[in-house]
Amino acid sequence: MDHPPMKGLSILGSTGSVGTNVLRVVDAFPDRFTVVGLSAGSNVERLAEQVARYRPRVVSVATPAARDELRRMTALGDTCVTVGEEGSVAVATHPDARLVVAAAVGAVGLVPTYRALEAGKDVALANKETLVMAGELMVEAARARGGRILPIDSEHCAVHQCLDGRGAREVRRLVLTASGGPFRGRPRETFADVTPREALNHPTWSMGRKISIDSATLMNKGLEVIEAHWLFGVPAERVEVLVHPQSVVHSMVEFVDGTVLAQLGVTDMRLPIQYALSYPERWEAAIPGMDFARGLCLEFEVPDHERFPCLRLGYKALAAGGTLPSVLNAANEEAVAAFLEGRIPFTAIPESILAVMEAHQSRPVRELRDVLAADEWAREQARGVLQVS
Amino acid sequence: MDHPPMKGLSILGSTGSVGTNVLRVVDAFPDRFTVVGLSAGSNVERLAEQVARYRPRVVSVATPAARDELRRMTALGDTCVTVGEEGSVAVATHPDARLVVAAAVGAVGLVPTYRALEAGKDVALANKETLVMAGELMVEAARARGGRILPIDSEHCAVHQCLDGRGAREVRRLVLTASGGPFRGRPRETFADVTPREALNHPTWSMGRKISIDSATLMNKGLEVIEAHWLFGVPAERVEVLVHPQSVVHSMVEFVDGTVLAQLGVTDMRLPIQYALSYPERWEAAIPGMDFARGLCLEFEVPDHERFPCLRLGYKALAAGGTLPSVLNAANEEAVAAFLEGRIPFTAIPESILAVMEAHQSRPVRELRDVLAADEWAREQARGVLQVS
Repeated sequence: MDHPPMKGLSILGSTGSVGTNVLRVVDAFPDRFTVVGLSAGSNVERLAEQVARYRPRVVSVATPAARDELRRMTALGDTCVTVGEEGSVAVATHPDARLVVAAAVGAVGLVPTYRALEAGKDVALANKETLVMAGELMVEAARARGGRILPIDSEHCAVHQCLDGRGAREVRRLVLTASGGPFRGRPRETFADVTPREALNHPTWSMGRKISIDSATLMNKGLEVIEAHWLFGVPAERVEVLVHPQSVVHSMVEFVDGTVLAQLGVTDMRLPIQYALSYPERWEAAIPGMDFARGLCLEFEVPDHERFPCLRLGYKALAAGGTLPSVLNAANEEAVAAFLEGRIPFTAIPESILAVMEAHQSRPVRELRDVLAADEWAREQARGVLQVS
Repeated sequence: MDHPPMKGLSILGSTGSVGTNVLRVVDAFPDRFTVVGLSAGSNVERLAEQVARYRPRVVSVATPAARDELRRMTALGDTCVTVGEEGSVAVATHPDARLVVAAAVGAVGLVPTYRALEAGKDVALANKETLVMAGELMVEAARARGGRILPIDSEHCAVHQCLDGRGAREVRRLVLTASGGPFRGRPRETFADVTPREALNHPTWSMGRKISIDSATLMNKGLEVIEAHWLFGVPAERVEVLVHPQSVVHSMVEFVDGTVLAQLGVTDMRLPIQYALSYPERWEAAIPGMDFARGLCLEFEVPDHERFPCLRLGYKALAAGGTLPSVLNAANEEAVAAFLEGRIPFTAIPESILAVMEAHQSRPVRELRDVLAADEWAREQARGVLQVS
């Protein structure tokens, strides 16, 4: 049997929830991939294990202290260790990497992901914040250098599968599904009492902390609406969100001829990851399909914007464009951190984001600098708002 | 704006339920199609209206008497009138027809559809019986002459859309959905009392009489399993049937990577017809999409083989192969006719089909003649069984 060529892979955020699942997929197809680079934040212990196992050419860590710790923990051999943003960029642009998995969480992934696209790499994107902040720049860099942006987010992977190469011209609307989060049925008057522990307890997906809070506020869908706009070129008014508590249908596309395609599957992150890694092929996987024989009931309902105002904030930022989506994202990251630290109540998340957005004068995004400046401005503004509240 | 070239269209069964909906789609895209040929059975009055409106080059009717009636009813101008199977073949193979819609009901469509494929035409196939009877010959003729078989049956059109060019190699299983028919919840002991009027009352689709009865017995799914096997090259053990009373999901494909794609839509026959006619494009249509905002609950359950034995008969015929699927089809057509005429009870439909199948010595299908001989044998056998029962 002929062996396909090995695909060189770099992973930004290799020790996180998505990163470790990417490596599980790599493990399932040892003849398909070679791990070229790994970039991590503070989880040096797990990174050390990954280095020992995959022997990448280059790794990056957040700080010089983390680099020293990594050196103490494992024999690095030929692996080169780099630090900080410069290090992540080295991982993202290594000449042997054909595909870069962007799985860092939040704004920290922005620069290395952009550099990967500028270097003509294909990017498997889990880090939705990069598209929220700099969608136009990212899409333009991919177009100009011939790289592809392959979504890993389960909703966007679903849309990607439903489209399977068809363009926005054939799309009447995209329907992103939302589990509704842990508070779908919770009365509005109790929202002020929500604890971080309750908010982290997602009903259907096991995910990282930040994205779990975003799911509880529905900000996750607000960000995904923006992400979908940039990935698929569909205007905001043709991107809808539907609450679907079973999380079986991961998203849908309604085409201009009135037909709807939906992608269904178990809630296993390896499913969208593998599709992004194998695209345009599909590879046999040991992931179970749907167990229809048990019987199944799939429910769909419109989201409640009163209890979950974050969703509308996403549409609002996308409609305004320019730097406002970056501001939305930064203010959200600050608010989520403050909530997780117990500094603000759950209901202050949307309130503080709205306050920061309203204080912002949106400007056009011409280069990455514009985005980074807006991000910095918004974080400072948010910290002020969060201290007051 | 550039105009696309007009596509020459012949319709076998133009006055039936599918045929008239094909012409509604043609009416919606007057610049896309020119009607070259029309073939009808006994509904001369409707055919006369169609001739007056579309001015086809050739029409065919069942008998010389029908031809004379047609001549009395409308001025034929340049339209040539032909008769019987020879006439249908003339419609199906007219040099100006690029796409032939095979929408005749039952075995009568077999020869003209096969001739269309032999002539290298694309065939939009609603007449599932032709694939049940002679699937291998049909698929081979399409392959040899470069024509495509584009399914119009809503389930197979759904699979066709979910695959969108992907092959059987990437398929773990096909899941054909069934509404369950009008007797999904009816107790088994009352099945002997089912009247034709009850059986014709389909819960979700408005269709012709024969297919409505097939839906009530689930034989429709038995035939569709065989049809799916030939259309998509997927073996019987990887074609499943699932009862889905809402008829919103028209069918699904589970791929080897564990992902499932489903096609959803309103129960409007124009939807699959238009897809077959526009393929590989999708055209903007005035057909409404899904109204998710009202809320929606989609249920799935496994079929009850005790109450609906016809489904297993389909699998049995496909597993045996050769002439047995033709025998299944012929015995079913005879049994349905007998039931509609009040000559046999509802429960005698599967019983009589099984009796005919068990009396048959299956033979390989090498040419159309083998199929036609088995069909003839089975009808005679069935008539004997039905008189006794």
